[in-house]
Amino acid sequence: MTSNSRISGILTPNLTPVDARGHVDEDCLRGYVDWLIERGVDGLYPNGSTGEFIRFTPEERRRIVRVVVDQTRGRVPILAGAAEANARETIDACQAYGEMGVRAVAIVAPYYYRLSPEGVYAYFREIADAVSVDVTLYNIPLFASPIDVETVRRLAFDCPRVVGIKDSSGDLPNMMRMIQSIRPQRDDFTFLTGWDAALVPMLIAGCDGGTNATSGVVPELTHAIYQAVQDGHIEAAMQMQYQLLPLFDAMISSGEFPEGFRQGARARGWEMGSGRQPKTAQQQAAIDQAKSEIERLVQQLSGATTSPAADDIQTINAIVRRVLEQL
Amino acid sequence: MTSNSRISGILTPNLTPVDARGHVDEDCLRGYVDWLIERGVDGLYPNGSTGEFIRFTPEERRRIVRVVVDQTRGRVPILAGAAEANARETIDACQAYGEMGVRAVAIVAPYYYRLSPEGVYAYFREIADAVSVDVTLYNIPLFASPIDVETVRRLAFDCPRVVGIKDSSGDLPNMMRMIQSIRPQRDDFTFLTGWDAALVPMLIAGCDGGTNATSGVVPELTHAIYQAVQDGHIEAAMQMQYQLLPLFDAMISSGEFPEGFRQGARARGWEMGSGRQPKTAQQQAAIDQAKSEIERLVQQLSGATTSPAADDIQTINAIVRRVLEQL
Amino acid sequence: MTSNSRISGILTPNLTPVDARGHVDEDCLRGYVDWLIERGVDGLYPNGSTGEFIRFTPEERRRIVRVVVDQTRGRVPILAGAAEANARETIDACQAYGEMGVRAVAIVAPYYYRLSPEGVYAYFREIADAVSVDVTLYNIPLFASPIDVETVRRLAFDCPRVVGIKDSSGDLPNMMRMIQSIRPQRDDFTFLTGWDAALVPMLIAGCDGGTNATSGVVPELTHAIYQAVQDGHIEAAMQMQYQLLPLFDAMISSGEFPEGFRQGARARGWEMGSGRQPKTAQQQAAIDQAKSEIERLVQQLSGATTSPAADDIQTINAIVRRVLEQL
Amino acid sequence: MTSNSRISGILTPNLTPVDARGHVDEDCLRGYVDWLIERGVDGLYPNGSTGEFIRFTPEERRRIVRVVVDQTRGRVPILAGAAEANARETIDACQAYGEMGVRAVAIVAPYYYRLSPEGVYAYFREIADAVSVDVTLYNIPLFASPIDVETVRRLAFDCPRVVGIKDSSGDLPNMMRMIQSIRPQRDDFTFLTGWDAALVPMLIAGCDGGTNATSGVVPELTHAIYQAVQDGHIEAAMQMQYQLLPLFDAMISSGEFPEGFRQGARARGWEMGSGRQPKTAQQQAAIDQAKSEIERLVQQLSGATTSPAADDIQTINAIVRRVLEQL
Repeated sequence: MTSNSRISGILTPNLTPVDARGHVDEDCLRGYVDWLIERGVDGLYPNGSTGEFIRFTPEERRRIVRVVVDQTRGRVPILAGAAEANARETIDACQAYGEMGVRAVAIVAPYYYRLSPEGVYAYFREIADAVSVDVTLYNIPLFASPIDVETVRRLAFDCPRVVGIKDSSGDLPNMMRMIQSIRPQRDDFTFLTGWDAALVPMLIAGCDGGTNATSGVVPELTHAIYQAVQDGHIEAAMQMQYQLLPLFDAMISSGEFPEGFRQGARARGWEMGSGRQPKTAQQQAAIDQAKSEIERLVQQLSGATTSPAADDIQTINAIVRRVLEQL
Repeated sequence: MTSNSRISGILTPNLTPVDARGHVDEDCLRGYVDWLIERGVDGLYPNGSTGEFIRFTPEERRRIVRVVVDQTRGRVPILAGAAEANARETIDACQAYGEMGVRAVAIVAPYYYRLSPEGVYAYFREIADAVSVDVTLYNIPLFASPIDVETVRRLAFDCPRVVGIKDSSGDLPNMMRMIQSIRPQRDDFTFLTGWDAALVPMLIAGCDGGTNATSGVVPELTHAIYQAVQDGHIEAAMQMQYQLLPLFDAMISSGEFPEGFRQGARARGWEMGSGRQPKTAQQQAAIDQAKSEIERLVQQLSGATTSPAADDIQTINAIVRRVLEQL
Repeated sequence: MTSNSRISGILTPNLTPVDARGHVDEDCLRGYVDWLIERGVDGLYPNGSTGEFIRFTPEERRRIVRVVVDQTRGRVPILAGAAEANARETIDACQAYGEMGVRAVAIVAPYYYRLSPEGVYAYFREIADAVSVDVTLYNIPLFASPIDVETVRRLAFDCPRVVGIKDSSGDLPNMMRMIQSIRPQRDDFTFLTGWDAALVPMLIAGCDGGTNATSGVVPELTHAIYQAVQDGHIEAAMQMQYQLLPLFDAMISSGEFPEGFRQGARARGWEMGSGRQPKTAQQQAAIDQAKSEIERLVQQLSGATTSPAADDIQTINAIVRRVLEQL
Repeated sequence: MTSNSRISGILTPNLTPVDARGHVDEDCLRGYVDWLIERGVDGLYPNGSTGEFIRFTPEERRRIVRVVVDQTRGRVPILAGAAEANARETIDACQAYGEMGVRAVAIVAPYYYRLSPEGVYAYFREIADAVSVDVTLYNIPLFASPIDVETVRRLAFDCPRVVGIKDSSGDLPNMMRMIQSIRPQRDDFTFLTGWDAALVPMLIAGCDGGTNATSGVVPELTHAIYQAVQDGHIEAAMQMQYQLLPLFDAMISSGEFPEGFRQGARARGWEMGSGRQPKTAQQQAAIDQAKSEIERLVQQLSGATTSPAADDIQTINAIVRRVLEQL
């Protein structure tokens, strides 16, 4: 894969497992990376919102990327979340991740303060002009300053290093406006959606792929969805989208994000620890209550087995075939 | 068409033409109704938001429906906006429209006050239990109290007279949640989208059709879009969606709604008058400036002719073929 | 009172009583008007949001104003809500209310559609240029298009007939910005606050008075608050504000607005009927549950008696004195 | 001052000066601290939103607090912003600041993710149970998860170490609700407002003081405001509030926050550097344009001199007297 080709397929914004003492659980992370790749994900995206990048220290964030790169061994491309406290620190992280061999970095727009479009442009421009790694913009207006269509367009045309956008707004017409205004002049620009509830429509509208938290729980299903759209089986893809939606809803509404996804991974046999956000007894009770529903949905979508070791590519293909046949 | 069959296709929420004195321009309305039907719209929807129902008196609203019903002469079904000052007045309007022969009424959730889901349920329940005409719910959270998924589900199951929903939120996953929770038990329930910018994805997701303001300006294109999805030509449909989007954006952002759509109709030869919302000189200047861009987009999408008399069904089919071939 | 003097004091946006058949209960309305005036309110404001103007027909709205004017017999000034379906109808209502003898009309910004500041200006300008009655703007951004500071300023300077604003936003700095930008040039311009929870701070900041729904329930207390600020007893005023707040919170959060205020009036002996917005059994149960808490708060604030006939001005003065002494 | 007494008066959330290389400018910070204390501020609040805590590294944040503590030499109490990446890191920072001798730490609710009230409670509870320094909650719903009244109440009653709240919402009734529900049981609990545009009403409503960014620019005026309210000169205080408002509006709307406040400090002779958020040429031009207006307002409010060395307490008192006489 050269730096000119678009990033495509389903990339997993992976959860960050922590051990009983709250430290990054490297062994678990390595095993989880293998499991995801074996189940067909097209890339990994450490230090995303699902990975709770903001709850780790700068040193921990670097270690997380290093471990993921090392374990991946080039099997799939890596998009590394690189946002730090300010432009200077972010540039340093970009360079470090570039040297580690990531395909590109993903940088969320400044958060806490809500910046104007002009301020968002200035921030990304400063970074893009300084780094020697490909940069994807990360738009998540729910959590950070929004990156509007015009700002994406300006950055795409002014900065060769800006090679794509990951958009988690779920706003389909806005995605179309971005594609319509950029693709004719920059055919190499990548559009990824981070809103799992609209994955199929986004792919039909021309997205190159998705960075979807559900792919960390049911990678076989998101893989099958992507493949079905690629093959023109729109009806089948849409039916799988209808299957994905209740699981996505259950996981996103269960406890503080990404607690529900942690429960989902647990249902696949991956113990991610309890996370870094403290919980009250009432919250723990609610999560325990949601757990069985999430487990039920996961089992239904992923086939019977939850043992990480038991599956292989053949099994996945069989599952995908079975899912497609059922539709 | 029986009351059990779903409402489908593209229904036009038609503009209400007014003359120089600000009165409903009945001649223009009759001509416009004919023109729309001849260009392939599947139904009419007087007294919608595009028709500015709220800016007319109760008597005017009844006259508008009467004229549309009379002129349509059963060629296409009519969905009549029936919201009045309170449940009692709304029930009376429903009965009147039912007797006029409309297919169903559409009732927006209470506006001004923002009601709770329970209050929205109570309002629709009172109406649905009292009328003898089919009722479609009208969800437009930008302007009125939102009707959430659970409330639609309750009304669908508790009220046989509630036969569908017109949703103008543009929220695709929410539309899927409604379809998923209602269709298995009520296969006759109609789902219509009012958000033109996402028409194709909504149709792919299972909507029965749309009530789209753009169909009052480029009915040939919205017809072709609906047909293309019906025939499984998803790529062609999506390309037409990409053609529709800039026109929709230009019309919706030009002056106070629905001023831009009035300009669009003007570009097709229909003089709708200046509307009932006063304009400042600055606003008029902005509209005049937007006019040529809207005209350019309309001409491009609708073929060369703007004379209402010049087209016929054959011409439309030719245009649709041409559009489809170009894709 | 001449048309040049500012409107001041506490005006009651009165509830509209309806009888068992849902019709305006004229006898109750007349009795309630007398009761309010006897308890010291400085004016009446029929057809406000508390009066549910939007749930009545144009004919009913006129009747409500006529009854209030007739019963008031000039004892206090009347501010009549005059918003109708469009500028033309609103102008007609303004003229009718002017001829009935109201001090001024109050016109809410256009609702349902959210207009731009320029559109809001155009709407009020058209009306103000056509009427021969004084006009107060009514800003309630929660329910209608917002009227921003610059638009109020333009209307104040361009339209002699626009004599004031009633602002229910509760935004104190914004009120200060309006006062600061208009009063130096138009000393006759009235500023009224409609947000009971900040009545005292608004009066301290320079408001001439308030149109407060709580004054329809505890007119003695709102009168005492206004008087205390006038007399410079800020600490006493603030302590009464602290007493008013829990009652306001209880009434505004109980059922659909203005259901809680209806319960409050009931606690003073006024049976306003059940309103025009239908209720579910669940809602009715919630209201019944809130009723005793509202009654308790009302009794505590208004003195022991709830019989409309039992009080007179002397009693009120005694209550006010007692309240002030307790502080 | 013992840990049982409330924190009161005006505390300055100080800007963080950076030098040409973008490093913390320690000399400037020390000089600025002296200048603020000499002009009458009642405390300092490093690492607040105005201090751009989020744009510095953990090490830089500690250094900032250390410098401020060292330079203050106990002349005024220090409230140190202590939010870090997660509860564990925040606890460590709290302990470090406690050992440095700060009066209390201020901890913003988790940002980026929007937590539920229960999640906000869990976060603060975990911290408060672990630290040996007093904690003030920092509510700024524009930037971070909101801390609602009930959550403040629970924390105040469950955690002896939680000694106050700094609220920057500007919501006056909400501040009253907090005071009303907590003060009767915890008289030692401090309520500070961070919304300069409503400083006087907040003080009248019972706040103990404010943490106001404008106090970093016109400390004489904010001091005079606080003093006037303390002395019961409400009218004078309100007139100074009217003087403060245009400056606050000009600074908060100029460039990305806190750029306008940096311009304000510059007008007093303090060069704070260009900040860490990059700017486009267009943004720089807009700031330059706003500069003269901010300078004009600052000169008007602060007296003629801008030389940091020229003023002393006597001059301040004279200015305050002059301001009060002018009213």
